[in-house]
Amino acid sequence: MSKEISTRAEDYSQWYNDLVIKGGLADYSAVRGCMVIKPYGYALWENMRDQLDKMFKDTGHMNAYFPLFIPKSLFEAEEKNAEGFAKECAIVTHYRLKADPENKGKLIVDPDAKLEEELIVRPTSEAIIWNTYKGWIQSYRDLPLLINQWANVVRWEMRTRLFLRTAEFLWQEGHTAHATKQEAKEETERMLEVYAEFVENYMAVPVIRGVKTANERFAGAEDTYCIEALMQDGKALQAGTSHFLGQNFAKAFDVQFLNKENKQEYVWATSWGVSTRLIGALIMAHSDDQGLIMPPKIAPIQVVIIPVYKGEASKEIVDSKAAIIIQSLKALGISVKYDNIDNARPGWKFAEYELKGVPVRIAIGLRDIENNVVEVARRDTKEKQSFSMDGLAENIKLLLDNIQENIYNKALDFRTENSKEANSWDEFVKLLDDKGGFISAHWDGTAETEEKIKEMTKATIRCIPLNNKMEDGQCILTGNKSIQRVVFARAY
Amino acid sequence: MSKEISTRAEDYSQWYNDLVIKGGLADYSAVRGCMVIKPYGYALWENMRDQLDKMFKDTGHMNAYFPLFIPKSLFEAEEKNAEGFAKECAIVTHYRLKADPENKGKLIVDPDAKLEEELIVRPTSEAIIWNTYKGWIQSYRDLPLLINQWANVVRWEMRTRLFLRTAEFLWQEGHTAHATKQEAKEETERMLEVYAEFVENYMAVPVIRGVKTANERFAGAEDTYCIEALMQDGKALQAGTSHFLGQNFAKAFDVQFLNKENKQEYVWATSWGVSTRLIGALIMAHSDDQGLIMPPKIAPIQVVIIPVYKGEASKEIVDSKAAIIIQSLKALGISVKYDNIDNARPGWKFAEYELKGVPVRIAIGLRDIENNVVEVARRDTKEKQSFSMDGLAENIKLLLDNIQENIYNKALDFRTENSKEANSWDEFVKLLDDKGGFISAHWDGTAETEEKIKEMTKATIRCIPLNNKMEDGQCILTGNKSIQRVVFARAY
Repeated sequence: MSKEISTRAEDYSQWYNDLVIKGGLADYSAVRGCMVIKPYGYALWENMRDQLDKMFKDTGHMNAYFPLFIPKSLFEAEEKNAEGFAKECAIVTHYRLKADPENKGKLIVDPDAKLEEELIVRPTSEAIIWNTYKGWIQSYRDLPLLINQWANVVRWEMRTRLFLRTAEFLWQEGHTAHATKQEAKEETERMLEVYAEFVENYMAVPVIRGVKTANERFAGAEDTYCIEALMQDGKALQAGTSHFLGQNFAKAFDVQFLNKENKQEYVWATSWGVSTRLIGALIMAHSDDQGLIMPPKIAPIQVVIIPVYKGEASKEIVDSKAAIIIQSLKALGISVKYDNIDNARPGWKFAEYELKGVPVRIAIGLRDIENNVVEVARRDTKEKQSFSMDGLAENIKLLLDNIQENIYNKALDFRTENSKEANSWDEFVKLLDDKGGFISAHWDGTAETEEKIKEMTKATIRCIPLNNKMEDGQCILTGNKSIQRVVFARAY
Repeated sequence: MSKEISTRAEDYSQWYNDLVIKGGLADYSAVRGCMVIKPYGYALWENMRDQLDKMFKDTGHMNAYFPLFIPKSLFEAEEKNAEGFAKECAIVTHYRLKADPENKGKLIVDPDAKLEEELIVRPTSEAIIWNTYKGWIQSYRDLPLLINQWANVVRWEMRTRLFLRTAEFLWQEGHTAHATKQEAKEETERMLEVYAEFVENYMAVPVIRGVKTANERFAGAEDTYCIEALMQDGKALQAGTSHFLGQNFAKAFDVQFLNKENKQEYVWATSWGVSTRLIGALIMAHSDDQGLIMPPKIAPIQVVIIPVYKGEASKEIVDSKAAIIIQSLKALGISVKYDNIDNARPGWKFAEYELKGVPVRIAIGLRDIENNVVEVARRDTKEKQSFSMDGLAENIKLLLDNIQENIYNKALDFRTENSKEANSWDEFVKLLDDKGGFISAHWDGTAETEEKIKEMTKATIRCIPLNNKMEDGQCILTGNKSIQRVVFARAY
């Protein structure tokens, strides 16, 4: 029997959990809100990480590593940032356990090992990093400082969902320091574009590039740029953010540099991050009721080969033919898994790799070998086709490219269909409650109206798109004057 | 002026710190005992990690990720393991900060946000992983389970030293589950050999492969295998350990499987790890009074090219010739940095890259170009030689291989010179106090004698070498019967 998963129509939320858990990506753990990333999920993250890492290095960044803990006095230095994260911090207060005198074999926290100053488990690293940069930056010659960190962070969330919102997650956080405002702004936008290119070209998920409203800004930022993706249930998902931090952290940590004119100036900052949350976006953008659909460019396994045989003699023939195919695929840089383990029937295996979203499945049996063909099934459309053994690897490579393009286009079509304009409050509410999606509407530009709309509908302003068209209009809620449409949606 | 560093003879400990900090590998942080790994140090760690990761995957392991936190009740389940780490655990007790009513802009730990059960920041992950494996292992078909994790861990140490002993460090920890004792034993030994090959072939540091005595075993292990390296001050450094855990964790977490005979059995376990501590070993094995010496195979920069010119016109000529050389080096997979930044004289740069331990330095000036040569300096021997531009990249490649071999041989010669037999207590103490090193001596096999020797001399039994020669003798301390020599040293 293959594993049962819920359908999207039955229970979207359960469908998502089934894909994550039964697809082998992640599991719940014994720690509230923390997940275990299983080997298949971690292999996906490694592919995403390696590609992003290359893009960061190609744009001049270097990796470094900063402490997991932030002393409370540093954490609170940049007040807005501290305030923004204060309610979700895990706090280390003691550094030793001791034997419980009343319970043999049990341990208690040793009250004599209380820290003088509590340590915050990093929810984000601006504070510890800018405190360090103070020692690294003296002159304009030390700038720009372009550093990225791959790390785990902890944000104590009350309601958690695998990948989308977990207490601990893996991410990267770039933290750069610049001599001018202009340069820092350019960096903020450059990294947003790196994210957009990664998510579109590798994850095959189209995104809107935009700027957050003041309400939705990162705590401590002067501007937060974001990329927003649309999920199949019509909800938006923020896939990455890039922040222009102005001189806020430089001032909080007194990071000044001697400029070319020999004057002391505060340094300009950016920070930007994407996390394992992207895996949630990937799942919800592409998958169907049979399981995951992995984009070929980052799939942990691009091709699975399943032998079909009866008896040991025919197994040997199929194995040896498969070995030749595997070699030719690997020679083209295609990752391939050969599943000839003798514990399940081909049909069960077909369903299993469909669930796991492997882009291409090759089935090979004795009769195929006689006919010099294999059966090739593509995961995205579920089409099956007979491929000649001649030039097979090259044709599989083309097929993988085609699948990558197809699932991007499918997601783009979905987004196009589900991006609407609303020109009145009723229309807005109707669109939201019907299929959701991105709703482009006029807003009077006030935080108050934004807040009210959120309270009434749970929809938030996802962003003001970059290069937005200026267009006079009336706010859908207040009727007040508006100069441009903004993008609303209910969101993860 | 180039940066000043202490010499080994003057102050070995200060020399080490100077290399780490002034060489750009790491820095102290605002958090007691935690370090910042700087870009150059992190690039070294990335090269080490990538090579190890490849070796783990080549031996069938997959990566995964488990939570940072371990609930206290799980942590204490395997009693010996818990007891071994209890005294050095960072403990999370609260999950929220709030505004300090008495200090505007300051935060305090919110007493209402006390966790019901404290969370231990992982000092090692056996407990959380075996608790997870319980859900993953039902039958012999689920075995072996071969998983590795790259992660940060925290051990609250009272005296810390950059890389060698820090409260937080980066490492990998393999955790495998097997159906039989024999298979788990083989895995333990296989991974020890992977470590030994990595440290010898990539880090160019020779190691002794051995088994720890009961006193020095990992808490919760039945056998701890180790590799031991010798530093230039005559002290030993444990470079990696691989543990045979028997069924201890399987019993503590009730992980059983249905064997082929349809009977329930406890699973057999191993764990093994190496950490950023290896960087400390690398530094102390090879470096000299001018700075670091990086083994070419893992050096962040293998070749640095420094132009020598006067004026803009000659700079252009040198730059364009250098570009050709860089291209030819990169084509052979050699990492190269071209330092033509106009803020320091060549002599200063020479000293800087010597300090950073870049294996090969190429200097190129106008006269060199006229003569179709470059000046090549190797870091290990400091020899300078003129190389023809013709076939330069190929010859640099050979030179890098030669340097790798040479620094290994140098370290091996040092170890050979500093590995002695002691046949009496006086001889033992004299050797220890003279130059230290590895001392091979008879020991009566009791924990009591081992402890006494440690108290009297600070020397510990580093290991009982694998395939040790059986040889009757008398314990150097007690004169009691001994069947083999073991390796003693003072150690980091």
